[in-house]
Amino acid sequence: MLVRILVSLKPGVLDPQGRAVHHALEGLGYSGVRNVRIGRMIELDVDDDTDDDTIKQMCERLLANTVIESYRIERVQS
Amino acid sequence: MLVRILVSLKPGVLDPQGRAVHHALEGLGYSGVRNVRIGRMIELDVDDDTDDDTIKQMCERLLANTVIESYRIERVQS
Repeated sequence: MLVRILVSLKPGVLDPQGRAVHHALEGLGYSGVRNVRIGRMIELDVDDDTDDDTIKQMCERLLANTVIESYRIERVQS
Repeated sequence: MLVRILVSLKPGVLDPQGRAVHHALEGLGYSGVRNVRIGRMIELDVDDDTDDDTIKQMCERLLANTVIESYRIERVQS
């Protein structure tokens, strides 16, 4: 079973990487960009019987730094 | 308009970060994990009149290294 975890910085947390990409896009001539936020996408191939709570635990304990990041769990295929 | 770009390594490209996370998950006792792949999620807030071709260009020129990475464009809100 494929599960996708989307980890992004919480609103208000400074995103220097996003700012650098934003600046680079403007440098390439793309003026219609208002904001850029960079996050992580983690694709887990897990056993079919892995329940939501276990995946949530993996996120809370390792995959996301919940002090400054929020995460979303998406089941891609079962 | 919010657009999300999901960038991931092409199949066959070595993913040391994914391997390290996989190893750490096993160390925490999560044995049901078969594989882990780490990618980037880029959230762009762009003008509503930005067309698909422009976003594709941004990906090809800057946001993804198309030699080893593939990308997917998702419109989150319009």
